[in-house]
Amino acid sequence: MSLHAVILAGGSGTRFWPLSRAKKPKQFLALVTERTLIAETFARVEPISDAVWVVCGNDHALAVKAEAPRARVIVEPAARNTAPAIALACRAVQREDPEATIAILPSDHHIARPDAFRSALTAAAEAARGGDLVTLGIRPTRPETGYGYLRRGAQRPDGSYAVEAFVEKPDAATAERYVQDSAYAWNAGIFVFRADAMLDALRRHQPKILDALDDFARMPSISIDYGVMEPESHTTHRIALVAGDFGWSDVGSFAALPEVRALDSRGNAISGDALAVDCDDCVVLAEGDRLVAAVGLRGLCIVDAGDALLVVPRDRAQDVRAVVEALKKQGRQDKL
Amino acid sequence: MSLHAVILAGGSGTRFWPLSRAKKPKQFLALVTERTLIAETFARVEPISDAVWVVCGNDHALAVKAEAPRARVIVEPAARNTAPAIALACRAVQREDPEATIAILPSDHHIARPDAFRSALTAAAEAARGGDLVTLGIRPTRPETGYGYLRRGAQRPDGSYAVEAFVEKPDAATAERYVQDSAYAWNAGIFVFRADAMLDALRRHQPKILDALDDFARMPSISIDYGVMEPESHTTHRIALVAGDFGWSDVGSFAALPEVRALDSRGNAISGDALAVDCDDCVVLAEGDRLVAAVGLRGLCIVDAGDALLVVPRDRAQDVRAVVEALKKQGRQDKL
Repeated sequence: MSLHAVILAGGSGTRFWPLSRAKKPKQFLALVTERTLIAETFARVEPISDAVWVVCGNDHALAVKAEAPRARVIVEPAARNTAPAIALACRAVQREDPEATIAILPSDHHIARPDAFRSALTAAAEAARGGDLVTLGIRPTRPETGYGYLRRGAQRPDGSYAVEAFVEKPDAATAERYVQDSAYAWNAGIFVFRADAMLDALRRHQPKILDALDDFARMPSISIDYGVMEPESHTTHRIALVAGDFGWSDVGSFAALPEVRALDSRGNAISGDALAVDCDDCVVLAEGDRLVAAVGLRGLCIVDAGDALLVVPRDRAQDVRAVVEALKKQGRQDKL
Repeated sequence: MSLHAVILAGGSGTRFWPLSRAKKPKQFLALVTERTLIAETFARVEPISDAVWVVCGNDHALAVKAEAPRARVIVEPAARNTAPAIALACRAVQREDPEATIAILPSDHHIARPDAFRSALTAAAEAARGGDLVTLGIRPTRPETGYGYLRRGAQRPDGSYAVEAFVEKPDAATAERYVQDSAYAWNAGIFVFRADAMLDALRRHQPKILDALDDFARMPSISIDYGVMEPESHTTHRIALVAGDFGWSDVGSFAALPEVRALDSRGNAISGDALAVDCDDCVVLAEGDRLVAAVGLRGLCIVDAGDALLVVPRDRAQDVRAVVEALKKQGRQDKL
């Protein structure tokens, strides 16, 4: 069995503005370590992979080559969410290795314990051997309302679980319940399957995607979760879950950085030329060439990207999108 | 009667860091209009003055010449508070014009209604004609605990008042009482007197200052309020008050800027390349060459000076001193 890692790097989110820009989305930022998230993703999976592939847009192919020189780059003709990107990758990998097993990996997550992660991935590859589509289910550590959940069913002889349901983002009370119930896991967007099994499932549920592979402009835009995994769980029931506990974080916004970075004694995550006086639970990223001084602040994010600076409360970090929208309206292309 | 304006520009405070630096204290900042505070002070008083003088330290003489080219500069040999600076100015002015009346003006305040200010100053010069030392008393507009107060007594035929007492900074309850009582006025540090009358008063209360005029290193450091005005009020009782209402502000910190600047519909004082989304009562000064974006903030000051940036809640704006102290300890001369 050969394992091909496929890193999805087509994302172009705005939640890390002003560090992230159109030409430099989140996966190309060194948000946690000194390496970019995509370089860390590559390094994490390379030791157990026969080949590592990266799917990205044309604008980012050079950046991918710079961050992961040994990766094989698949350029998406257009951004169409994860199902088309995975279809493209399955066909490319299968052309070279018809028996390939594929691990799908987001390019912009952080994993604190890479050894435990590789063990889980190897177990998932085992579970995928018979043709099941396998997801890695992450043990929830808090009542998160921003993620989709997986509900697992019976355990199988190989240690994996059946997946009973893909569960939408819950409300706060429901999320509290899930965190207490070991049947619920976070859906981290990490999938392992045989290339032929995924192409079969795409043929069943998203035939238009396979039809459009040669004319990508006609490609429907849909995620692999909604497009394949969930309908497959209702029909063939050949969706499995391998439980993982390896310090996963999707690093969803600046507010998440204290989860994944070293903190000072008052809970501040600080980097660069920054000075915090009487501050608690703040994020101060001084990535420009100037001193950033913070006095008497609680739970605030200050992010200096050199040519633009953001100040936002941690509990409103998602609202950075409003800035990006305002800049678009003002035609400030230089800051986007 | 000739009126000589004397602007005191020896201040070197740190409350406007990072805009203010050792070489560029507050009076050299354009905090309210497009002109610096000292340039505004000069322009405000020049129309009613026979001459305008500026007392400053040697380090700032060139900056004074740049901001007020027609001013006559008196360089203090050392910084020794206001009483020595005023003694120096009295002697310099008197040498040229023995009958001179002098108006003492801080260089770093803002006055919204210059016409009303000039009228008050002219009335004070009239009141000073007979040899009294005259203060301008500002009608309090809020229960300020950061200022000294004047308590006035009987009104005199020329419209001025006797000064009954110089009152220390009050606590909050006392300040509430003062703001209701028309007998109390803010002491704004604006004084008008005949040069000979002030030199007489200095001789009575601060003979060491006059003795030390030729050897400034021996000069005691004391304010004109404590050194002359207050003791004079207990002895000769020749201290008068002219009431003023001309939109005075000492612009004491970044937190005071909303008092003196145009505000947007949500009470934000914003300048430079700044973008505020859902912010209230904030001060955002983007004086660097970078965009400053603020999202979801309440009562926060963000001040970008180009090579250093400060973020501090408005109600802790005084604590910027802690940053300056920390930078001194770290030997960061480049930022001081």
